[in-house]
Amino acid sequence: MYRTNTCGELRLADSGKEVTLAGWVQRVRKMGGMTFLDLRDRYGITQIVFNNDTDAALCEQANHLGREFVAQVTGTVAERSAKNANLPTGDIEIIASGLTVLNPSEVPPFTIEDDTDGGDDLRMKFRYLDLRRNPVRRNLELRHRMTMETRRYLDSKGFLEIETPMLVGSTPEGARDFVVPSRMNPGCFYALPQSPQTLKQLLMVSGMDRYFQIVKCFRDEDLRADRQPEFTQIDCEMSFVDQDDVINLFEGMARHLFKELRGVELTEPFQRMPWADAMKYYGSDKPDLRFDMKFVELMDIMKGSGFTVFDNAAYIGGICAKGAANYTRKQLDQLTEFVKRPQIGAKGMVYARVEADGTVKSSVDKFYSQETLQKMKEAFGAQPGDLILILSGDDAMKTRKQLCELRLEMGSRLGLRDKNKFACLWVVDFPMFEWSDEEQRLMAMHHPFTHPKDEDIPLLDTKPEEVRADAYDMVVNGVEVGGGSIRIHDAALQAKMFEILGFTPEKAQEQFGFLMNAFKYGAPPHGGLAYGLDRWVSLFAGLDSIRDCIAFPKNNSGRDVMLEAPAPLDPRQLDELSLSLDLKD
Amino acid sequence: MYRTNTCGELRLADSGKEVTLAGWVQRVRKMGGMTFLDLRDRYGITQIVFNNDTDAALCEQANHLGREFVAQVTGTVAERSAKNANLPTGDIEIIASGLTVLNPSEVPPFTIEDDTDGGDDLRMKFRYLDLRRNPVRRNLELRHRMTMETRRYLDSKGFLEIETPMLVGSTPEGARDFVVPSRMNPGCFYALPQSPQTLKQLLMVSGMDRYFQIVKCFRDEDLRADRQPEFTQIDCEMSFVDQDDVINLFEGMARHLFKELRGVELTEPFQRMPWADAMKYYGSDKPDLRFDMKFVELMDIMKGSGFTVFDNAAYIGGICAKGAANYTRKQLDQLTEFVKRPQIGAKGMVYARVEADGTVKSSVDKFYSQETLQKMKEAFGAQPGDLILILSGDDAMKTRKQLCELRLEMGSRLGLRDKNKFACLWVVDFPMFEWSDEEQRLMAMHHPFTHPKDEDIPLLDTKPEEVRADAYDMVVNGVEVGGGSIRIHDAALQAKMFEILGFTPEKAQEQFGFLMNAFKYGAPPHGGLAYGLDRWVSLFAGLDSIRDCIAFPKNNSGRDVMLEAPAPLDPRQLDELSLSLDLKD
Repeated sequence: MYRTNTCGELRLADSGKEVTLAGWVQRVRKMGGMTFLDLRDRYGITQIVFNNDTDAALCEQANHLGREFVAQVTGTVAERSAKNANLPTGDIEIIASGLTVLNPSEVPPFTIEDDTDGGDDLRMKFRYLDLRRNPVRRNLELRHRMTMETRRYLDSKGFLEIETPMLVGSTPEGARDFVVPSRMNPGCFYALPQSPQTLKQLLMVSGMDRYFQIVKCFRDEDLRADRQPEFTQIDCEMSFVDQDDVINLFEGMARHLFKELRGVELTEPFQRMPWADAMKYYGSDKPDLRFDMKFVELMDIMKGSGFTVFDNAAYIGGICAKGAANYTRKQLDQLTEFVKRPQIGAKGMVYARVEADGTVKSSVDKFYSQETLQKMKEAFGAQPGDLILILSGDDAMKTRKQLCELRLEMGSRLGLRDKNKFACLWVVDFPMFEWSDEEQRLMAMHHPFTHPKDEDIPLLDTKPEEVRADAYDMVVNGVEVGGGSIRIHDAALQAKMFEILGFTPEKAQEQFGFLMNAFKYGAPPHGGLAYGLDRWVSLFAGLDSIRDCIAFPKNNSGRDVMLEAPAPLDPRQLDELSLSLDLKD
Repeated sequence: MYRTNTCGELRLADSGKEVTLAGWVQRVRKMGGMTFLDLRDRYGITQIVFNNDTDAALCEQANHLGREFVAQVTGTVAERSAKNANLPTGDIEIIASGLTVLNPSEVPPFTIEDDTDGGDDLRMKFRYLDLRRNPVRRNLELRHRMTMETRRYLDSKGFLEIETPMLVGSTPEGARDFVVPSRMNPGCFYALPQSPQTLKQLLMVSGMDRYFQIVKCFRDEDLRADRQPEFTQIDCEMSFVDQDDVINLFEGMARHLFKELRGVELTEPFQRMPWADAMKYYGSDKPDLRFDMKFVELMDIMKGSGFTVFDNAAYIGGICAKGAANYTRKQLDQLTEFVKRPQIGAKGMVYARVEADGTVKSSVDKFYSQETLQKMKEAFGAQPGDLILILSGDDAMKTRKQLCELRLEMGSRLGLRDKNKFACLWVVDFPMFEWSDEEQRLMAMHHPFTHPKDEDIPLLDTKPEEVRADAYDMVVNGVEVGGGSIRIHDAALQAKMFEILGFTPEKAQEQFGFLMNAFKYGAPPHGGLAYGLDRWVSLFAGLDSIRDCIAFPKNNSGRDVMLEAPAPLDPRQLDELSLSLDLKD
């Protein structure tokens, strides 16, 4: 027994109790004949007092404590004279009668405070110290509560958590696999799963009815801020369901999580927006609906007035930023620079202010009459004081995506993207396929197991690019937190899908034979979805990157700088695996 | 909406309701003008009735249903005339008014019944069909409830579930790692964790205080019935604890699980048996205490009477099988053959019967007086009707292990190993080290991070082989379900431990530098343990192998015969990983 209480639990009602606490030295302050020690653990901070008059030796010992020493203190709980309202334990202090240093500490390479002086690299190298900081620890606590509540909810709905294997077969379709050489089967490799997609479908064939798993998945991709080579999915699948069944159940789960984890009651049903509308009005399949600023198309109004940029455009569209007519020339130039950045790639930006008298003053006034500009104003429903921003281009989809970036930027600038406000929706009716210029063939937009909409099945033979899927994404604040689909459960339809995707029957059999064979033995109708746990926790925690809700994340080169992994192998290990290195210079 | 109810939920109170069910065809029986369909899903079986008189076409349709077809049936709930008390739904049936085949099925390769005609290989290849069988499905349901209850219990005790990475560094100490080549870091490899041991210790350094994780671990070992290359651990760690704290908390968890999952109330505190006693009295560090049959040493009594086998032995010991004196010569010969099997390796067995009049009749009567035999009888406390079995050998530890096998065999033969009875204990005070003939050095019996008993620390320099560890295993019915230890939290003691284990300081730093560095910054005293989930579920389920509580297990060659993994890679994948095959013929 190292302690009777944690550093977060003692209150005024405990006054007079003899207690023992253990924790880390947050700070030590000498004031007159007294030494004050703030002792910290996961649960809080408690103030300990050493009195030089009462016990000079003990006080002297306390004076020698350094930051982050591990100490055990015995003493009596007493009411503080100067209370600290910011601290749950701020009404009391411990009058120390004993002190043991359980472990000393070198001076940490950065301060263990909410705002640390440590840079990103140093924090990652000493991640075990970084995790001592409240904000980081709170993210992990939130993650724990999120998985507990998710499991509670799904268990209450009859879902079984079933572990699927981590050592599976490699499927070159899709993203790149991480592979694992098999010593017992020389020349053969396992792959780490990119998702348990086919395995959960097999569990439906096996009659498990409702499956979930909170599970690590792996993708060997080049990394970005919100990507990690290993990530965690809340993976779910249900039998005998249609799209509405799945959406309703998981909308219920989202409500439950928002309420339990953020205290937010989402009373309205989530909007269901067809993919085509999301692209048309927001230029994105994951629109941020915390603010409106819908796209307005201006082809009819703005074309043919002699402004060649618009006259030659395949798309002209804009957004109306309420109350932003007072933007200075400098601010507008910044926005133009923003959309011209190579990552966005617009050629330029047109703007128009609605003046106090209702007239419109634009950057292209010499080409347009006030009458035309008024029509444009009406198209936006713009009011005096509003700012209209317009983009155009020769590729409608690309221009919409540029306009989407501009909309998000304006939302941020106008303070419309409050991290404590949540706008949830389902994007539905995704296209079944998308054309790949690289592969010169149709690719599955979701994955090859997605069920086409029944009414679009006849189009599979004639116009596959127009076929819509029973696929749905859940979007919160412009982040796709999850997505899924109704799956094909018919072996013939699945075979046809592989054919459209350019698989020969042999290749389909080789890669997905186990699934198509399973479909011959009574596969039930089924569907499901998967949430990205890291993303969802980040969203709840208000983080910009998923990294800080992961205990030991990897950097952008896929390295764990604390463990110094990956690393070269012992040659004996390579030999046992029947492998040799083939390094290019 | 494919169904209004499951196949397991309708009761007499539902009579008259119009319902829709969906599920699999278990069987179809024609009787007179009626066709009876048993429709099955995860939740149960419901009988459906088709009446040829009422709707001949519908009845004809039902007659064409094959085994394992997926069918949707609409009808009215009615009371059965001939009730089936063995079925929760046995009081009712559904008078069918509609039938849709949702998916036909080929004839499955084995019967989907509790007792199937499918062999192990076939069941594994078609595991998705095998999982439809009640006994297998129930194992997965039990596993789900086990993890739910484990999480509930640990959450209620303030534990946080924290995910540790799957892509870590390779540590050649211990078992063989599975490794993962890094494409982004050519020539470098990750390893899959054998356990999150060092990472959970870092979480203690980070102040997380109470950690757990139900997590996949990996070991590239040659496989046996109860080993899988990937297995699941309930992994736990706590700060500011001593051995009693850990044992008490997890004994509480075990009680909780036994009660919730098996309805067994374990009221007595678990016995704590020193490792030395376990070896002395049971010849095993995981004694099966469902029955007594303790070893009795006979060196004093039986040596020096001219029986050279005993006279030359380093160990003579035996067990007393109550009431087995009536064993025939044939049965005794079988036992002798049993202990002489190469896996056990005894040279022979001596037996002695206690006759009704109290005299002892033994297989070595010519060497021993009745007086000596009576002394032996008393040493066992044997009664008339008991059978005494004795082994001897020139290596005490080896002979004890042989006697352990004999004891377990006798326990089984005498019906003393009831799968519905549970005997739990803690084995404590393990030796810190064991000598490895292969490596010609001391090896850590538990692992190199285990804390020696404080009172034995002085022996580290003088007699390391006598040092005992703060290590403990939880044993149930002769199965080690979990184990752990108090860890070293002092960098100097950890460095000394690596030295005793034959690490140079450089090698220790290279492999475990991250941990020893972390210990410099205020590591708290900590300890923990890990349970083998697969083993524990098997025990609760009464299984002999862990395989049937795993959804998709691998065979003894580490292969998934359903997925046909592992498999050769696409050469392009190898090339991207800067690897080439180096196959030996």
